[in-house]
Amino acid sequence: MIKEGDIIKLILVDDKNKQYLKKVRKGIIFEDHKRNRLTFEDVINRDYGSVVKNFIILKPTTEDFILYYLKRKTQIIYPKDSAYLLLKLGINSNSKVLEISTGSGAMSIVLLKCLYPNGFLVSIDKNMDFILNAKKNISEFCNLENINYANNLGLINFDVLSKNIFNLFKIKFDSCVVDIPEIDDVITKVYELLNSNSTIGIILPTANQVIKAIEVLKSSGFCDIEIQEILLRKYKANYNRFRPFDIMTAHTAYILTAKKILKY
Amino acid sequence: MIKEGDIIKLILVDDKNKQYLKKVRKGIIFEDHKRNRLTFEDVINRDYGSVVKNFIILKPTTEDFILYYLKRKTQIIYPKDSAYLLLKLGINSNSKVLEISTGSGAMSIVLLKCLYPNGFLVSIDKNMDFILNAKKNISEFCNLENINYANNLGLINFDVLSKNIFNLFKIKFDSCVVDIPEIDDVITKVYELLNSNSTIGIILPTANQVIKAIEVLKSSGFCDIEIQEILLRKYKANYNRFRPFDIMTAHTAYILTAKKILKY
Amino acid sequence: MIKEGDIIKLILVDDKNKQYLKKVRKGIIFEDHKRNRLTFEDVINRDYGSVVKNFIILKPTTEDFILYYLKRKTQIIYPKDSAYLLLKLGINSNSKVLEISTGSGAMSIVLLKCLYPNGFLVSIDKNMDFILNAKKNISEFCNLENINYANNLGLINFDVLSKNIFNLFKIKFDSCVVDIPEIDDVITKVYELLNSNSTIGIILPTANQVIKAIEVLKSSGFCDIEIQEILLRKYKANYNRFRPFDIMTAHTAYILTAKKILKY
Amino acid sequence: MIKEGDIIKLILVDDKNKQYLKKVRKGIIFEDHKRNRLTFEDVINRDYGSVVKNFIILKPTTEDFILYYLKRKTQIIYPKDSAYLLLKLGINSNSKVLEISTGSGAMSIVLLKCLYPNGFLVSIDKNMDFILNAKKNISEFCNLENINYANNLGLINFDVLSKNIFNLFKIKFDSCVVDIPEIDDVITKVYELLNSNSTIGIILPTANQVIKAIEVLKSSGFCDIEIQEILLRKYKANYNRFRPFDIMTAHTAYILTAKKILKY
Repeated sequence: MIKEGDIIKLILVDDKNKQYLKKVRKGIIFEDHKRNRLTFEDVINRDYGSVVKNFIILKPTTEDFILYYLKRKTQIIYPKDSAYLLLKLGINSNSKVLEISTGSGAMSIVLLKCLYPNGFLVSIDKNMDFILNAKKNISEFCNLENINYANNLGLINFDVLSKNIFNLFKIKFDSCVVDIPEIDDVITKVYELLNSNSTIGIILPTANQVIKAIEVLKSSGFCDIEIQEILLRKYKANYNRFRPFDIMTAHTAYILTAKKILKY
Repeated sequence: MIKEGDIIKLILVDDKNKQYLKKVRKGIIFEDHKRNRLTFEDVINRDYGSVVKNFIILKPTTEDFILYYLKRKTQIIYPKDSAYLLLKLGINSNSKVLEISTGSGAMSIVLLKCLYPNGFLVSIDKNMDFILNAKKNISEFCNLENINYANNLGLINFDVLSKNIFNLFKIKFDSCVVDIPEIDDVITKVYELLNSNSTIGIILPTANQVIKAIEVLKSSGFCDIEIQEILLRKYKANYNRFRPFDIMTAHTAYILTAKKILKY
Repeated sequence: MIKEGDIIKLILVDDKNKQYLKKVRKGIIFEDHKRNRLTFEDVINRDYGSVVKNFIILKPTTEDFILYYLKRKTQIIYPKDSAYLLLKLGINSNSKVLEISTGSGAMSIVLLKCLYPNGFLVSIDKNMDFILNAKKNISEFCNLENINYANNLGLINFDVLSKNIFNLFKIKFDSCVVDIPEIDDVITKVYELLNSNSTIGIILPTANQVIKAIEVLKSSGFCDIEIQEILLRKYKANYNRFRPFDIMTAHTAYILTAKKILKY
Repeated sequence: MIKEGDIIKLILVDDKNKQYLKKVRKGIIFEDHKRNRLTFEDVINRDYGSVVKNFIILKPTTEDFILYYLKRKTQIIYPKDSAYLLLKLGINSNSKVLEISTGSGAMSIVLLKCLYPNGFLVSIDKNMDFILNAKKNISEFCNLENINYANNLGLINFDVLSKNIFNLFKIKFDSCVVDIPEIDDVITKVYELLNSNSTIGIILPTANQVIKAIEVLKSSGFCDIEIQEILLRKYKANYNRFRPFDIMTAHTAYILTAKKILKY
């Protein structure tokens, strides 16, 4: 049953099925660009799946939330990429994961779902604004899923390119997700912070960065280096004229994964 | 530390880095096609990440396990597809999920990771052989991750195309994953078994099936129908000659997702 | 040397390199959206490749012309698709080709280049407006290439779904390119118009149409049926940050090709 | 009508439709791996499109010839790539084109079709073996198309990385196709050999090469630099189960195109 404060997905019942993710607030009237109106009080106490006036009211999925609700202050890691990365890195509900950097928290959310309830995520960003924004996004997501991921999360405001951060940790991590442009130094440092039996995932938009990263990974004690990209192609839901959409996202990022070799 | 019974990933240290997933068994000697040998007793009590003779010894990830260890008696749902489906369906550690059908358990494993510890999976297959094989695969995976997913899983041997199965359930489900060729009937039945606030994911190899499924979903009370395919393109980990591999998997399946609308 | 009436490609010399295809006309001043101006009289008698004020002046290629100059009254067949189709159909400078339908002439241009000087193209469209527009486009293209393709072209305004058109031809064709939505009837008729040793190419946007076309081709005496799509992925010309563009055309059409089997 | 010496395409009439390109030779019996036999004398004087015993006899298309008959002594430029390059470079039947290097002649064939009858191709290779092989391939192709492209072709055995070749030419070229690994030097030299109003096309397998080539093109007086790749995805010709083939070629080469700017 929908209550005040819930995030809902509205789909307009017409030919285009335009969609909106909104928070339910008493006293607020939603109006789309075609002047279709919905008074949120009419939504409260209804079940998800209900049709209210011209709108179908749905509960957002994880992807809906990340793509259409999460507030972006940075480029995000897209669900098509983050979902696959979890399986590549072998993360589970016991894993200790380090994330560099937090960004808008889109990857953090996907990691937290996987880590819950016994693992934990340490996520670092040098930009306090980003940390605060990510914290808010994650908090909204906890609300959406009605699961408190807060106990499994540590957010740290620090510049990883500076020298001492990696001395702070007493523990070692099972996986590290790296999403910063300058990775050379970080890869070497991360190596020290990883368990034997650990994996690293790196998200990079350009081929130049990938070329550099492969070289650094090879010389820093990583093996089983794999590089991939995920292309998501969508089709029109028209059974008389089934065909792909005209345009698609052609590139988000290259995904690198590797595993630690022990030096001895 | 590696012990007897563990599944390990062996990577041969040479130009090709050929890989093997094997279970560690005392008294067994592994020999590859080039007669490189490894006595498993030399691996026991070593840390993952160690190099033993010509081999690097690693812990398999979820993807490694599904692609290279899980015993296939059916086509499987590939990690690139199953990972994305989780986020599309909004599954989390509280979800109750129905899977039709179990097949070899590749999707079940990915669902269980996400459902643990408070959700549960009911997985149905009409073929008892497949059920037993999937059970064994899941059990091996529990061993790999050292997490007991058994309490979160019910395997049912039943032909869903028969009439009465759906009367058996007292509860309703938050999501259903359908991977059978004949879906028309099943979609209608699944509708009744789903909560308001629920999602359905369907895996189909051919366009003809997708065309039919869109029609049935639309007439059966589902909305927000999306159809997509995930293309995974891999690159050679060679920093002097960075380029995609020559060939790739061009098609596994179309992925359909939809949400339930309440009838009233 | 550029003269009045020539079509030129202007590239603005700045970060974005925005491009324009324009016909050189005395007394006309070109102005882009940022108020960069170019008096066409300053371009006349200059060589292609010259930089005039903020613009590089280039001769358009075939692709430039089709994508950015040809006037579209219909969807066009894109160069990525038409170029490949030529080689699939084995067309050369001796071929007699039938095109149904003419549309805006984008495919006709590519065919004429290949047929010149000894082959010929008969192109049919039921819409006289389209014929006239295509004729004008082809004429502009002759001007661009300084080759008179007119002798190799017959444009016919006729509705191919009507009964008698195919009785009109005394000759038989080596290849036929079909780009109309309703192909069932046409395929059967085209069969009669084709030489032994002939090929057919069909351009279809939806999977439903392809499914139908395969069935009709198989039952109408065609073999070696191939279906394909061409995906063109573009990269940014930035050597410090080499990566694909963010979005791409995901779909233009499925391309079917087949060859005639003699009935006996 | 098929005569001795013709190249034919044989398609076995069964479920798999396995294909063969063979030269018709009296006294020779073709036998496939399943011991289906065809006496070539039974094919002579038949029309293309005929069914002889278990085989359909077809005339090969340009693509058939390049992919399945042309003798490869090098990697070839694939029809999907060469076809598109023609339109990108604006080549027509008046063009003078330089090709570096000849390789097995797969690109030369596609160029010659476009250049015929008034243009010409100068193709250079440092390896005399490759030249001789390409010459033979082109000669077979002339036979297939029954068009004598020989007058439009000059093959030169020379190492373009040496200093003086470019002094040899009195004429300038409209387009140049470059397919050699080390392009830095060549690009600069080619610039001098090109007309104003000219285009260059470069075929490169690795991202590292592309990155270097963009840099060199920019500093050598080229503009309108575009980089692209062509992905060809094939579908099964089964109207009951329409779907892509399981695997595809994921990469042949990156295609760079650019145009000359005049220096002044």
